[in-house]
Amino acid sequence: MTAPERVAELSLPEKAALCLGADIWHTAPVDRLGIAPVRLADGPHGVRRPAAAGEVGIGSSLPATCFPTASALGSSWDPELVERVGAALGAEAAAQGVAVLLGPGINIKRSPLCGRNFEYLSEDPLVSGVLGAAMVRGVQGRGVGACVKHFAVNNQETDRLRVSADVDERPLREIYLAGFERVVREAAPWTVMCAYNAVNGVPASQHRGLLTEVLREEWGFDGLVMSDWGAVGDRVAALAAGLDLEMPPNTGVSDAALVAAVRSGELAEGALDVAAARVLALVDRVGAPTTSEVDADAHHALAREAAAQCAVLLRNDGGLLPLRVPPGGSVAVVGEFARTPRYQGAGSSQVNPTRLDVPLDELRRALPDVDVPFAPGFAIEPDPVADEPLAAEAERVAASADVVVAFLGLPASQESEGFDRAHIDLPQNQTALVARLAAANPRLVVVLANGSVVRTAGWERPAAAVLECWLSGQAAGGAVADVLVGAAEPGGRLAETIPLRLADTPSYLNFPGELGHVRYGEGVFVGYRGFDAVDRPVAYPFGHGLSYTEFAYRDLEVSTSGSADGGDLAVDVAVSVTNTGGRAGTEVVQLYVGDPEAAVARPVRELRGFAKVALEPGRTRTVRFRLGARDLSYWSTAAGRWVLEGGRFDLAVGASSRDLRLSAAVQVDAEPFRPRLDAEATLEEWLADPRGAEVLRAAVGVDGRGRPRGILAVPELARVLGNFPLSRLATFPGLGITQDVLRAVRH
Amino acid sequence: MTAPERVAELSLPEKAALCLGADIWHTAPVDRLGIAPVRLADGPHGVRRPAAAGEVGIGSSLPATCFPTASALGSSWDPELVERVGAALGAEAAAQGVAVLLGPGINIKRSPLCGRNFEYLSEDPLVSGVLGAAMVRGVQGRGVGACVKHFAVNNQETDRLRVSADVDERPLREIYLAGFERVVREAAPWTVMCAYNAVNGVPASQHRGLLTEVLREEWGFDGLVMSDWGAVGDRVAALAAGLDLEMPPNTGVSDAALVAAVRSGELAEGALDVAAARVLALVDRVGAPTTSEVDADAHHALAREAAAQCAVLLRNDGGLLPLRVPPGGSVAVVGEFARTPRYQGAGSSQVNPTRLDVPLDELRRALPDVDVPFAPGFAIEPDPVADEPLAAEAERVAASADVVVAFLGLPASQESEGFDRAHIDLPQNQTALVARLAAANPRLVVVLANGSVVRTAGWERPAAAVLECWLSGQAAGGAVADVLVGAAEPGGRLAETIPLRLADTPSYLNFPGELGHVRYGEGVFVGYRGFDAVDRPVAYPFGHGLSYTEFAYRDLEVSTSGSADGGDLAVDVAVSVTNTGGRAGTEVVQLYVGDPEAAVARPVRELRGFAKVALEPGRTRTVRFRLGARDLSYWSTAAGRWVLEGGRFDLAVGASSRDLRLSAAVQVDAEPFRPRLDAEATLEEWLADPRGAEVLRAAVGVDGRGRPRGILAVPELARVLGNFPLSRLATFPGLGITQDVLRAVRH
Repeated sequence: MTAPERVAELSLPEKAALCLGADIWHTAPVDRLGIAPVRLADGPHGVRRPAAAGEVGIGSSLPATCFPTASALGSSWDPELVERVGAALGAEAAAQGVAVLLGPGINIKRSPLCGRNFEYLSEDPLVSGVLGAAMVRGVQGRGVGACVKHFAVNNQETDRLRVSADVDERPLREIYLAGFERVVREAAPWTVMCAYNAVNGVPASQHRGLLTEVLREEWGFDGLVMSDWGAVGDRVAALAAGLDLEMPPNTGVSDAALVAAVRSGELAEGALDVAAARVLALVDRVGAPTTSEVDADAHHALAREAAAQCAVLLRNDGGLLPLRVPPGGSVAVVGEFARTPRYQGAGSSQVNPTRLDVPLDELRRALPDVDVPFAPGFAIEPDPVADEPLAAEAERVAASADVVVAFLGLPASQESEGFDRAHIDLPQNQTALVARLAAANPRLVVVLANGSVVRTAGWERPAAAVLECWLSGQAAGGAVADVLVGAAEPGGRLAETIPLRLADTPSYLNFPGELGHVRYGEGVFVGYRGFDAVDRPVAYPFGHGLSYTEFAYRDLEVSTSGSADGGDLAVDVAVSVTNTGGRAGTEVVQLYVGDPEAAVARPVRELRGFAKVALEPGRTRTVRFRLGARDLSYWSTAAGRWVLEGGRFDLAVGASSRDLRLSAAVQVDAEPFRPRLDAEATLEEWLADPRGAEVLRAAVGVDGRGRPRGILAVPELARVLGNFPLSRLATFPGLGITQDVLRAVRH
Repeated sequence: MTAPERVAELSLPEKAALCLGADIWHTAPVDRLGIAPVRLADGPHGVRRPAAAGEVGIGSSLPATCFPTASALGSSWDPELVERVGAALGAEAAAQGVAVLLGPGINIKRSPLCGRNFEYLSEDPLVSGVLGAAMVRGVQGRGVGACVKHFAVNNQETDRLRVSADVDERPLREIYLAGFERVVREAAPWTVMCAYNAVNGVPASQHRGLLTEVLREEWGFDGLVMSDWGAVGDRVAALAAGLDLEMPPNTGVSDAALVAAVRSGELAEGALDVAAARVLALVDRVGAPTTSEVDADAHHALAREAAAQCAVLLRNDGGLLPLRVPPGGSVAVVGEFARTPRYQGAGSSQVNPTRLDVPLDELRRALPDVDVPFAPGFAIEPDPVADEPLAAEAERVAASADVVVAFLGLPASQESEGFDRAHIDLPQNQTALVARLAAANPRLVVVLANGSVVRTAGWERPAAAVLECWLSGQAAGGAVADVLVGAAEPGGRLAETIPLRLADTPSYLNFPGELGHVRYGEGVFVGYRGFDAVDRPVAYPFGHGLSYTEFAYRDLEVSTSGSADGGDLAVDVAVSVTNTGGRAGTEVVQLYVGDPEAAVARPVRELRGFAKVALEPGRTRTVRFRLGARDLSYWSTAAGRWVLEGGRFDLAVGASSRDLRLSAAVQVDAEPFRPRLDAEATLEEWLADPRGAEVLRAAVGVDGRGRPRGILAVPELARVLGNFPLSRLATFPGLGITQDVLRAVRH
């Protein structure tokens, strides 16, 4: 029986119950029809199945591999890796009887202050979308459903259940929905989770435009939409908008409301049938529980490999990294985080790890013939009494070592689901320590662990190297040891800009809003799009990250084929990348596109392609990208669709958004922007169009001596009144734009 | 007969005709009832009565005194002066039979690019409002009506007749309407002119919220609302919204539409009666034509005095100004603008002056015993062939002089009503000349003539002094001579920030919008409010301007009286200002207020008072300000009214927004911001309120051992879920927020 056929067997209360779930982690069963419950579990970077049934269960879940969080995975720029992580997550979920894993979270990092940024991938929708789709493919390849969240425009924690994200349609489409669109179209997730917040005044849980028109009708989503936990305020309105499953079930309230609404005629029973059928279709998708054991060692090893691929080497003055310490030398390790690692964030995503690498131990293991003294240097929660002696001790330890590695990071108390940060600074006890350590020993490496961007300006100058590791999961300790000693490349690139100051960030004046509204006033100029638009210096640009080797870019070739009108326009881009350094390494080749001639204000450049390539020294690879019409288009609010304007496009490839190595311009044949020439078109618009000018001049006519009449004879007046529509010029006497002219140009 | 009584005598077509006007510059007469037409004329800074009847007439009007434009008058910070100018304008209007003068224009300078900025007063609504009200008082004191324009949110020329200014309610109220509100409430203008643009999608000409609800019902406006010329797209909708008079009359179209709409019942005849009565009431206000001659000499002298009071001395290294040249010495005058002065802007405000001072002539007159050689230095419209020999000649002239005065400015072609600028730079032929002149003679004074801000960074460094004179009317030449030689003080202060770069301006990413919409994404952070919010360096801050003497600030005293609840709250501020220099001079004492504890994001500081004081050397005056509740309030979008939150306010007085000399904090007793505690209030909000916490804890109850239940026992969970409304927490099992608790807290 198909899901709709089975729905026909159900009573109204049974259908309503299906749209609610049975308890906090299960959909509702229908025992008499043999319909089983489906188990859901949190888990963008690890399965979080509560040990006890029916519990929220943060901090008390079954052990599972804690992979790098999204803050780290976003920096991998590596869909193949993310897909493998997804597959491992799927396997663990299956082994725990979890049918749907609640991830990935692909919301845009609009502000570095967002408390949940560690759960999100990037400030850029291409990175978010490509990596999010890879994660979904990986999870679902194991027969477990993914749940793409939080749909949509959930970019802050402040007042997250009530705030309306007031965002114009162009940034909504180009920035905030684009990643979701890619994941839905490319990876067909089983489920999508609606966001807590409202979008332009309409709660996301009740937003028919998003949940039905855009998600299903435009993008072809055929899965189930569930609520974020507690996101439903009005169950009936939510169901009518396209929200199939409310979680947790507001039993006794929401089911009763649905039944009453159908009985009163407020809600069409057909709408309830559709939602219930989607729940049943999800049940059908769930395979038999797997009995295979998970290979915890293999998953830990994958977590370690992944963490190294996510580590971003921000700077490396004098090539201090990888560490080259002779046998018998010493590496001083400083920082409480070296023995008390920070590796994931707080809130619903918190995994109970199968094991946990301690960086200090791993570094000692990686440097068996080297002395590795340790000093904590600071208390994680700053403590004026304890910190000074700790810092003094760390200085002493640092002074006598060959190299110092300082493990800094954000205290867990400073970033979490549930609230936003108030600043982006590391605690002062840590930043002050940097200067003291560097004074004691300039061969200083700083290793960072933080889920959201921290400011580096102001303290980083005395450090020779800075390695940003993000919150990189249970094997972060091993991975950082691998990267420090050179057993692994630092494979990460920034998926978000590190600003010089918080106040420089484009959303600064509009974050986190007030009195229930947050205005997305920066429009499409989010992240690097904003910094570049105002040519603002940054600490480290989007896409940045050093390798242990060097790469040269050559032979950028761009060619176009097909046509925009024919629907098969393609811009093919090829570039040769050579490892010119002395060791193997990986490079993330980035392709940016700008549209300087558009009728709308577009970013100077936008990421439109990237490829992570691993090359042995001396080897070259040709990296190829193909762009289609959509990659060159903007969302036209006027047209209500993506618009490709013909003209020049600027292409650039490089190693970051501000390290562009080669560039080219390409001319794309497509309709240029043309205003509709009617009575509401302006005089300038008429005159700018050769045929329009001819029609208008003929309609206005000439005087006895063959000169144009009215305003067409007075350039100075045409300049002041040039942006008047003809209909308005017709209200002025003597300008020659008469009602007869209006009638004439209407044809 | 009252106006309504006379309306009752009119036929439907006669009433419709009254709401249209008779021709481009007159309201419609009704001969059979002896109702005369009323003559209107452009003229924010001078009467522009076309010489020929029925003509648009730009550039061909009767001679009238061209006073400093609003770009200059705004910099006067001197309501008494502006009122005198207004009185002179009113007198000239009356003498020309003009019953209503179309000014002042008080729109906010949102972007330095706005082509019509020279017609506007300031980036700050207090300056705009105070000076606008002074102008209205002056004009109307002569029995001539003023017309405050353009209502509202008309801050650009690009697509001005179609663009929708999409602005949130708080900036709309606090920034864009506040100046209009002050003028309407304080000066009762006879008329208000609606803007061309739409506001949040509704054409200003059809905006009932603005034209009727805010303007009349809230502010008590009792005059007539006319359209900007050509602003009406739908006469019936406009009339229903509160637009009384359409100009120019779209005769045959709009009158027919009004008659048809009344006949079909689409438009209530009562609405037409009200509008017609307002036209008749305007007719009644017009006094008998004055026969008095205007004293053109006196008005020219006033224009000269005013222009000096508007000139802003930006810098004066080494006290180069006022010029001290010994008899027989020489002052080289360079720059085409010295003999071809730029003194007003292009478009509808363009006055045919009664006479015109030439700066070079005036300076020669002011320095009778000094040699004043002249070299044009550049062509006003850059000319690669002509410019080089001109510059070389100017260098030679400069090299042998004691001092050089270079007259630079914006070519008229670069700023005008009708289009916005694309950049804020002076032409390169002028900026390049500065360096060459300074190399030839470091005693270099630059005098600027421009209606909108020009960038000074990049060329000004080698100049010792820079005097910004704006477009300062027909006597600007005499005034600049007065200021240069010290016969007058440079009395102006910047009414708008001069940024270091265009891209630094808060509206940059959102100007001038696209496809019919411009998003006011910077919200309330316009001008200095935005620069200060992000702590961005500027070339010259809002309020800046040097005097020829120095002032000391002492003894800031702040006291409060009355109460916010009682409606009589007053914060009294007193400060002593002493002229500590060697000559008489004027100081603009500025009072700024910040509200750091507000529930909304408020500017660091906002101008809340200013006073221009003239002091002899050694003299002291105590300057007093009184602030009321409104001065401390913000517009609450949630409450739909002005809200004063109790708490600390920061007050500072000084000579500019970034030259604050004294500061004080004051505690204001008023209701703090308190969320309504109901089921939609969050857990945090409940717990933050002592009584709320008590109620909630009691409702949730305790377990057998007296410990709180559910989420109240788990601080970590309360942190993650703290911003959940209670109603949403109730959907989670085990948190202790049950339906019973919800019922309990509802009371």
